[in-house]
Amino acid sequence: MDYQAVLEEVAAYARSYVGHGQVADYIPALEKVPTDRFGIALADINGEVYGVGDWEVPFSVQSISKTFSLALVMANDSEDIWKRVGREPSGTPFNSLVQLEWENGVPRNPFINAGALVVTDRLQTLTGDASTTMLHFLREESGNPDLAFDQAVADSEAEHGDRNAALAHFMASFGNLENPVPSVIEHYFWQCSIEMSCRDLAAAGGFLARHGLRADGSRLLEAREAKRINAVMLTCGTYDAAGEFAYRVGLPAKSGVGGGIVAVVPGRCTLCVWSPGLDSRGNSVAGAAALDHFTSLTGWSVF
Amino acid sequence: MDYQAVLEEVAAYARSYVGHGQVADYIPALEKVPTDRFGIALADINGEVYGVGDWEVPFSVQSISKTFSLALVMANDSEDIWKRVGREPSGTPFNSLVQLEWENGVPRNPFINAGALVVTDRLQTLTGDASTTMLHFLREESGNPDLAFDQAVADSEAEHGDRNAALAHFMASFGNLENPVPSVIEHYFWQCSIEMSCRDLAAAGGFLARHGLRADGSRLLEAREAKRINAVMLTCGTYDAAGEFAYRVGLPAKSGVGGGIVAVVPGRCTLCVWSPGLDSRGNSVAGAAALDHFTSLTGWSVF
Amino acid sequence: MDYQAVLEEVAAYARSYVGHGQVADYIPALEKVPTDRFGIALADINGEVYGVGDWEVPFSVQSISKTFSLALVMANDSEDIWKRVGREPSGTPFNSLVQLEWENGVPRNPFINAGALVVTDRLQTLTGDASTTMLHFLREESGNPDLAFDQAVADSEAEHGDRNAALAHFMASFGNLENPVPSVIEHYFWQCSIEMSCRDLAAAGGFLARHGLRADGSRLLEAREAKRINAVMLTCGTYDAAGEFAYRVGLPAKSGVGGGIVAVVPGRCTLCVWSPGLDSRGNSVAGAAALDHFTSLTGWSVF
Amino acid sequence: MDYQAVLEEVAAYARSYVGHGQVADYIPALEKVPTDRFGIALADINGEVYGVGDWEVPFSVQSISKTFSLALVMANDSEDIWKRVGREPSGTPFNSLVQLEWENGVPRNPFINAGALVVTDRLQTLTGDASTTMLHFLREESGNPDLAFDQAVADSEAEHGDRNAALAHFMASFGNLENPVPSVIEHYFWQCSIEMSCRDLAAAGGFLARHGLRADGSRLLEAREAKRINAVMLTCGTYDAAGEFAYRVGLPAKSGVGGGIVAVVPGRCTLCVWSPGLDSRGNSVAGAAALDHFTSLTGWSVF
Repeated sequence: MDYQAVLEEVAAYARSYVGHGQVADYIPALEKVPTDRFGIALADINGEVYGVGDWEVPFSVQSISKTFSLALVMANDSEDIWKRVGREPSGTPFNSLVQLEWENGVPRNPFINAGALVVTDRLQTLTGDASTTMLHFLREESGNPDLAFDQAVADSEAEHGDRNAALAHFMASFGNLENPVPSVIEHYFWQCSIEMSCRDLAAAGGFLARHGLRADGSRLLEAREAKRINAVMLTCGTYDAAGEFAYRVGLPAKSGVGGGIVAVVPGRCTLCVWSPGLDSRGNSVAGAAALDHFTSLTGWSVF
Repeated sequence: MDYQAVLEEVAAYARSYVGHGQVADYIPALEKVPTDRFGIALADINGEVYGVGDWEVPFSVQSISKTFSLALVMANDSEDIWKRVGREPSGTPFNSLVQLEWENGVPRNPFINAGALVVTDRLQTLTGDASTTMLHFLREESGNPDLAFDQAVADSEAEHGDRNAALAHFMASFGNLENPVPSVIEHYFWQCSIEMSCRDLAAAGGFLARHGLRADGSRLLEAREAKRINAVMLTCGTYDAAGEFAYRVGLPAKSGVGGGIVAVVPGRCTLCVWSPGLDSRGNSVAGAAALDHFTSLTGWSVF
Repeated sequence: MDYQAVLEEVAAYARSYVGHGQVADYIPALEKVPTDRFGIALADINGEVYGVGDWEVPFSVQSISKTFSLALVMANDSEDIWKRVGREPSGTPFNSLVQLEWENGVPRNPFINAGALVVTDRLQTLTGDASTTMLHFLREESGNPDLAFDQAVADSEAEHGDRNAALAHFMASFGNLENPVPSVIEHYFWQCSIEMSCRDLAAAGGFLARHGLRADGSRLLEAREAKRINAVMLTCGTYDAAGEFAYRVGLPAKSGVGGGIVAVVPGRCTLCVWSPGLDSRGNSVAGAAALDHFTSLTGWSVF
Repeated sequence: MDYQAVLEEVAAYARSYVGHGQVADYIPALEKVPTDRFGIALADINGEVYGVGDWEVPFSVQSISKTFSLALVMANDSEDIWKRVGREPSGTPFNSLVQLEWENGVPRNPFINAGALVVTDRLQTLTGDASTTMLHFLREESGNPDLAFDQAVADSEAEHGDRNAALAHFMASFGNLENPVPSVIEHYFWQCSIEMSCRDLAAAGGFLARHGLRADGSRLLEAREAKRINAVMLTCGTYDAAGEFAYRVGLPAKSGVGGGIVAVVPGRCTLCVWSPGLDSRGNSVAGAAALDHFTSLTGWSVF
């Protein structure tokens, strides 16, 4: 398949959606991104990367980092993490706290904030420095040694981080954190603040398409573990729109409020699309349209 | 592919799971089913049906009927039903009532009871006799003119139907029912009580694999509508185990507490597996194991 | 104390509040009441009744009936009813269904609708005709043989009764009803529809001030049982404004959306005030102001 | 009335309840208190204090401190605090977080932990040192200059304080805290850790019986403000047993998990009873029995 041609057709299609939606404004550092940006990149399983538009412009990965922290924990603990976090969709957003109380401090899945805090907590225990571990991993997988945290974003998150602190303390009250709350939160915010381009993210997510193999051919995850992450992405990766995403795109995907979405075609390729305008559920409007068109063109949807 | 051979290998694999789990006991009529039953059938898109074990023994379809009522409503209304019911996973079971109150009487998806009541209500409006309409449809699609309601089951459901009546009245209080509550509930129970075999169900669900075409080649649904139903099955079709099912099976599927599961490989075939022992989430233990093994053998999982 | 003079001063004070608030409009039959009405009556423990303004104009008792059904059940069962309904405040209104699910079908107190349905159910079991039993009791206690149901109101309630039917079926699903749901609901609506004046209600509630003695001197309740009802009125009798009422009025009271409020000064007298304009919590604006002024004048508040 | 004789009769009656119930064990520092202790004290409005049993033994005031922080805030802000915290009962304990989310970070009343944190936050803003302010106030009102914090208790609370930290951060995320979370929590724990005897507490709570006048005759609160606090105590002061307390005792009261209960007879006296065994709702078993008997003997119940 001529990936470059496909991406160009996808980008042409998505163009009319660019600028729609709202840029995330819950922290000042994200508000400033221009809404007219759009980029898309595809990394095939041999590591070849194709791209169109603003595919080399860095943006804030935000919740996309949740995929990588989960992978890094599973690389060490395999399926043990599921004792501390579920892997089922969570229903509506309000559930975060209600659900935690009902289910004794065990979050529904690793892609809601509460669940990602548990995963980060575990990564912190395993490595002693969860955020730096992730940064190094992303540098190696993307082949980009310049990846860095965005301190302004991390600080801004911390300044507006009371909701996440509430979640963390609440789970701690149920005994579901191993490290002190401030440390867990800090590493969580640093992870979210990493700046990467579509190119970087498509490459870094390659192990999900390669059934667990890293860029250098070494094994990060067993095939069934990579499959597990893909399954969680499909059912839980796009906030409260997983059903809609499964229908429209039909691929495992993880979105972030920075406007990025990483999607996986297992055995074939990893994509990353970026455009900052978000729909009411926090997913990139033009990004979702682009992935929708991609699976229509390639026939690689599940359905 | 030699479907018969595949099914035999699947059945051999699943054998060790047969008898595990609990038979549904919330109504007396379901308790009596012997736990050692196991059947599996596969209908290819040409209507050829293969089967192994108790694949011709009728059982109570229960919630599998929710797939057919949704299809029959979409055949007439296309996507209009989504104004009255969502299409996102619902989180934990307890949500049923909490979620309805929070979201003003709009159920999260058509496969939780509240959502299926709305769909049945709409089918009743469209046809004047929702349950008979479904029975006739299933007779035609399965090619089995002997399909019938099980009055003992329907009566038993009605006798223990206060929870469903509460859901229906609650939605009516929000103006989300078009017909009188007793009529909606009655047709809902009749639909659940239909007795079908694996053979019948695999054949009757063929339109989901044929992108909306019925057994006689006529069009029931547009391709995108069939895709929509498959997507809802994948994310919401197996109660509170959709994430686990996506991982293990990776196919759109709808289960019932009678022990049946219908699964779809779009463009290829529809399967139905049956074994009455249920896991804690209400899905057939041996049935899930069989589908898991089927996708391992065929490589037709999503991931 | 010169009760007539006190009532006149109270009425003069309350006059400026008359017409404020909204008339209940959830059923058409209640909407038509003119907002400029105000009446107040006081029955001393000897049965002497004083009144001012529209104190002899009948209005719909609505939730005030919950006090009488509770008394009639306790007269037979004493404290047994507390196995099926709690006696603590319920917090916010939304709790109705959430709380029922959480607490396995046991309502928080007998003055929320769910709790009153349980009490009516029990009264139906005890008497075979809950609403007629109450009507006869109220005729005797008020000395007014003309008291009657208002069929238009009862029909209107039934027509808009899905929320109450949901509550009743939900409790039935937990085994917390003894009679068929339609029968319980019907008697509940009939009870609410009884028309009484301030004069009738002050007289009929006399047993609460007389520590359980009826108008004819016979004993309806033990003193501690009457005390129990008064305590539940103080903490739960005015919907979600019990704290505010305790502060302003400091007396056991039960309000109804017809605009009536019955209040008790144990050992001294029973009051009933009526004015149809309701505040946002469903309590009569002018009625609350009148009771507030009454306790200021008499010093009979708790605090 | 011969208060000393009344207290002796009350103590004799309560004796058989001493040792019943469980000592609070959520923090180690409270577990060590012997269960066989019982003391009761009464301060009349002239400041005369009577006592029986262990009435001069200090214990941890815990939630009783919530009454004093509320009074100190109202002394400055009058009724303004109600913009940030409600004054209605909260229903079941689980509500804490659910209710906060539903009602946008505004706690239901100042006597649940969330509400007390808001009050402490305000006191901290007003004084710059909320806990020391309270300690000095209590020393002056009790006439006991030796009152002190118990550092072991405060440390123990902080060590097990994740639930309170979650509440505080959650409210901060809604903008309902003025000070940094750690500072609010710290002062809250210090307040709870103050050690006082029945004698000290009965004397210190005298202003509630004196309609707002302090021990030295100066005015702390307007009469209506003192009335307001008493009303909140009656409807919300005993955790999820306010309805039961209103029935049995019929007086404004505030309990703490240290086993103390302060009760007020407005215009007459303030009582404090202490016995460490708690019932399932966190109220002293022997303490409640004692107050019940006190109102029976004196006839000073509401009902």
